[in-house]
Amino acid sequence: MAVTFLDTTLRDGAQGIGISFSLQDKLDITERLDAFGIDYIEGGFPLASERESEYFRHAKMLNLKHAKLVAFGSTRRPDASVDQDANIKALLEAETPTVVVVGKGWDAHVHKVIGTSLEENLRMIDDSISGFKQRNREVIIDIEHFFDGYFSNQDYSLQVLRTALDSGADRIVLCDTNGGTLPHQVSEVFDRLKQENIPPERLGIHCHNDAECAVACSLAAVAAGALHVHGTINGIGERCGNANLISIIPNVSLKMGIEVQCSPQLSGLTELSRYISEKTNAVPDRKQPYVGDAAFGHKAGQHADVILKDSALMEHIDSAKVGNQRHLVVSELAGRASVLPLLQELHNTHKSKMGSQNSNPSQSKSLEKNSPEVRNLIRRIKTREAGGYLYEAAEASLELEARRVLGIFRPLFEMTNYHIEIFRTREFESQTVGRLFLKAKLDDEGEVLDLMGAGVGDGPVATLDAAIRNALFLNHIDDTEKDNKPNNHFAFLKELSLVDYRVRVINPEDATNACVRVVISSACGSLPKTWDTVGVSKNIVDASIQALKDSYDYYYNRFILNQ
Amino acid sequence: MAVTFLDTTLRDGAQGIGISFSLQDKLDITERLDAFGIDYIEGGFPLASERESEYFRHAKMLNLKHAKLVAFGSTRRPDASVDQDANIKALLEAETPTVVVVGKGWDAHVHKVIGTSLEENLRMIDDSISGFKQRNREVIIDIEHFFDGYFSNQDYSLQVLRTALDSGADRIVLCDTNGGTLPHQVSEVFDRLKQENIPPERLGIHCHNDAECAVACSLAAVAAGALHVHGTINGIGERCGNANLISIIPNVSLKMGIEVQCSPQLSGLTELSRYISEKTNAVPDRKQPYVGDAAFGHKAGQHADVILKDSALMEHIDSAKVGNQRHLVVSELAGRASVLPLLQELHNTHKSKMGSQNSNPSQSKSLEKNSPEVRNLIRRIKTREAGGYLYEAAEASLELEARRVLGIFRPLFEMTNYHIEIFRTREFESQTVGRLFLKAKLDDEGEVLDLMGAGVGDGPVATLDAAIRNALFLNHIDDTEKDNKPNNHFAFLKELSLVDYRVRVINPEDATNACVRVVISSACGSLPKTWDTVGVSKNIVDASIQALKDSYDYYYNRFILNQ
Repeated sequence: MAVTFLDTTLRDGAQGIGISFSLQDKLDITERLDAFGIDYIEGGFPLASERESEYFRHAKMLNLKHAKLVAFGSTRRPDASVDQDANIKALLEAETPTVVVVGKGWDAHVHKVIGTSLEENLRMIDDSISGFKQRNREVIIDIEHFFDGYFSNQDYSLQVLRTALDSGADRIVLCDTNGGTLPHQVSEVFDRLKQENIPPERLGIHCHNDAECAVACSLAAVAAGALHVHGTINGIGERCGNANLISIIPNVSLKMGIEVQCSPQLSGLTELSRYISEKTNAVPDRKQPYVGDAAFGHKAGQHADVILKDSALMEHIDSAKVGNQRHLVVSELAGRASVLPLLQELHNTHKSKMGSQNSNPSQSKSLEKNSPEVRNLIRRIKTREAGGYLYEAAEASLELEARRVLGIFRPLFEMTNYHIEIFRTREFESQTVGRLFLKAKLDDEGEVLDLMGAGVGDGPVATLDAAIRNALFLNHIDDTEKDNKPNNHFAFLKELSLVDYRVRVINPEDATNACVRVVISSACGSLPKTWDTVGVSKNIVDASIQALKDSYDYYYNRFILNQ
Repeated sequence: MAVTFLDTTLRDGAQGIGISFSLQDKLDITERLDAFGIDYIEGGFPLASERESEYFRHAKMLNLKHAKLVAFGSTRRPDASVDQDANIKALLEAETPTVVVVGKGWDAHVHKVIGTSLEENLRMIDDSISGFKQRNREVIIDIEHFFDGYFSNQDYSLQVLRTALDSGADRIVLCDTNGGTLPHQVSEVFDRLKQENIPPERLGIHCHNDAECAVACSLAAVAAGALHVHGTINGIGERCGNANLISIIPNVSLKMGIEVQCSPQLSGLTELSRYISEKTNAVPDRKQPYVGDAAFGHKAGQHADVILKDSALMEHIDSAKVGNQRHLVVSELAGRASVLPLLQELHNTHKSKMGSQNSNPSQSKSLEKNSPEVRNLIRRIKTREAGGYLYEAAEASLELEARRVLGIFRPLFEMTNYHIEIFRTREFESQTVGRLFLKAKLDDEGEVLDLMGAGVGDGPVATLDAAIRNALFLNHIDDTEKDNKPNNHFAFLKELSLVDYRVRVINPEDATNACVRVVISSACGSLPKTWDTVGVSKNIVDASIQALKDSYDYYYNRFILNQ
């Protein structure tokens, strides 16, 4: 039997700090989750706000291919009837085929939080489940704090489970609401439930990551026979987050060999993860299992050789299965094996683009381990790394070096002159103004213009960024408008933004003669990935400019010239 | 029996992308790990580079209280003798009480990576262990790729284990080198090993996080009786990282109830985690289990009410046990207990120095937990940390805050005005000039002078440093020489130097409106220790000036005024 997944990114995930989805975000995400093959999408808590119930009015118009929409709410209130309960009513009005109803599984919560008797809590669970079943809803009951309840009052927690089973709940989900349960405890509980003749195939699991074990606790439940798992994409959620479906799904499908409905789309896992990072405005975690940029990264030269011999010797799965890629990280120690794939990719893309236009024989031959381009790139990298550059954390700058070696690099502009002033006076707490001169090429054919730009910003980097945009974008808008060309060649700059900026002193022992290394992460609205560029100088402003210029040049070469 | 921990932050952790520790970083981290109560500190791979072996020459001079230093290397090469092996020699020359020797546990690696026979691999393990035991080393053997080996050729992997046992290895560590093993597989392997009469108490575990299960796999081994766990602080390491000791330690100690040596220091866990984040120039993960800012954060209003009724209903542990706090953005320093010793030390030093000179009663009373100074300092720290300051990694700046609260802070100077220009032209590759105005006090009694300084340097920080020295030192030399006073009051500035400079964007999601935090490490020829100061601003130059000024002021107050 297949394991089914309920994604609660839009409900429990949205409780994470700094996360807030617009209605459109929620609808877009719903469609993406459906396309990936998620079985249940918990879209919100309709009683919570008008916006939450508005989502359901729109979401039911979506043409979902596979997923069932799920509305979330709680059991009826104590000493009230189901028919009069506002929460039950809101859940019904969401008109979803499936509802999740949360009920209390810990006696202490029954007494201290909802202030009712243990018996009334059982009746609340029974009435609520029966009420939805009578109205033809599929009912998933979340037994909140089940594990805390089990370890403090086993008998009562088992009574809660039996009540839910007898009331006809389709799936009974054991929730580790406080997130502190360990995997061996989950296994222990499932063993006991089997002894109590509670069928594991009607059970599900809902974990939080407070002990860094949410993925493992979910797997422990699946190993014990549970067929239903709750989680969020990238593990977003309050405190330390919910169980991360991005790791659970491939673990269940690829490693435990259990059927999952989304397996045909598994190669879209990395893209799904990055899409949600983008929607939650999070910098993607490079170290994220399965989908991070570094998840299949290999640093040492020796490892890279082994990888090429037999990747199964060094990788736990084939990265393509989850839509990720191997990265042979280049460092001082790197051998030829690790730069060859990059050169080949650039070379082949360029060759196929140039096609018959270009009959230069050096462009048409294929690259091999002993090609001069490989040697040249390694020499270049070694020289620059000896000077403090670090390409393993700046793959976009590395790609530019590779383009230089292949003779297919076209700079967006050449900076000839800059001048920045930073001052603090009685009038201004602290202020930066900058002006610069640069030469820019208008297109591949290359009309070269001398441009000047000026900008004001907080700090030298923001100021330079503003001045460069001013020079390239605004000046050129004026030019093109004169010529009645509304499509500005540099308009793409509007879409680029700096998302992170890191500085490191490389050789602190040299004190004021020390070099600094600046790494800038950039993003573009339409791209799922960020890219990193590096600059090195004794002068932090100069290092920042190098990294900034590389960022522009990377985007220009790869996505605008598309060469 | 207690579980022991081997921290490999400095060795395997340093394989993480973008991580590179200076020698001084490594020595500082070694002392911090020791103070926390880590049992073994794997400091490096002496054969890898001169810098790695230099670490061991310095580290053995450290006065460690508890931890054993460990050097890492591999078994001897195939068909060579232990006595002639460069790697074995480098390990011995590191002169550590303990060595970690890595040996192959997967038949496929023996054949395809080192290209020798299965028998020779067993001899390599036997010879290497015996060789170190004869030289009175404690030997930990890492069986690389043990789990992959076990699942492809059980018999051989068991032979490897038996060889290591018979050769007298003190601890035999099963490594999940590719990181893809799941916790139930670890349990299964340990069950089998028990059946094979391999004593679990001689076994250890070393996991990587490629399946997001490294913590859980480590716990599975401990649950099965293993007494030795390898990991890194914050789980840094190549690909998806190593097993995270920051989660494993409290899980083992607080949840599994197993004895660990560092339990008395467990409340320093959050501080240790943040210290390593700072040293690795990483943005601390707010969601990090146990120690993240959000780990005990509660967003929903309802939750917050429950928390006030009974925190055990909503939190998996008491956050104070790991030095974390409920709510957001409050550092572990914000507890009264932790600032009191600092205030008392400063207060008592000042009181004893003032002695009978000063009869102010507020100076002579002793400080207690409820003194207004304690409350004021905590309030000040909270306000400034909410604005992005971080005092955990800047204890010199914290001391200045404490002096301010006690009314015993004397600034060396007050900066009134500065102006910096940074430019690149055809004549100058890149150049910075600065000028500034400041007010300086000549001595405790306080003749106040308006001074002006100018300087040229590489980058804004060096330029400001030069201009400040120019204003204070050179101008004043002229004055004193006129008066025939050769001992310049500011002559100590000559001895100070900047030894490290770190910059971090605090809120990258705010893009160009983001604040940067600058941390400067300073040293003085005559002092054994460096000190760190912090500045925060949207403008990197302004943040740098704050940190620079704090550095001067710290030295001036503590060592020149000696108050």
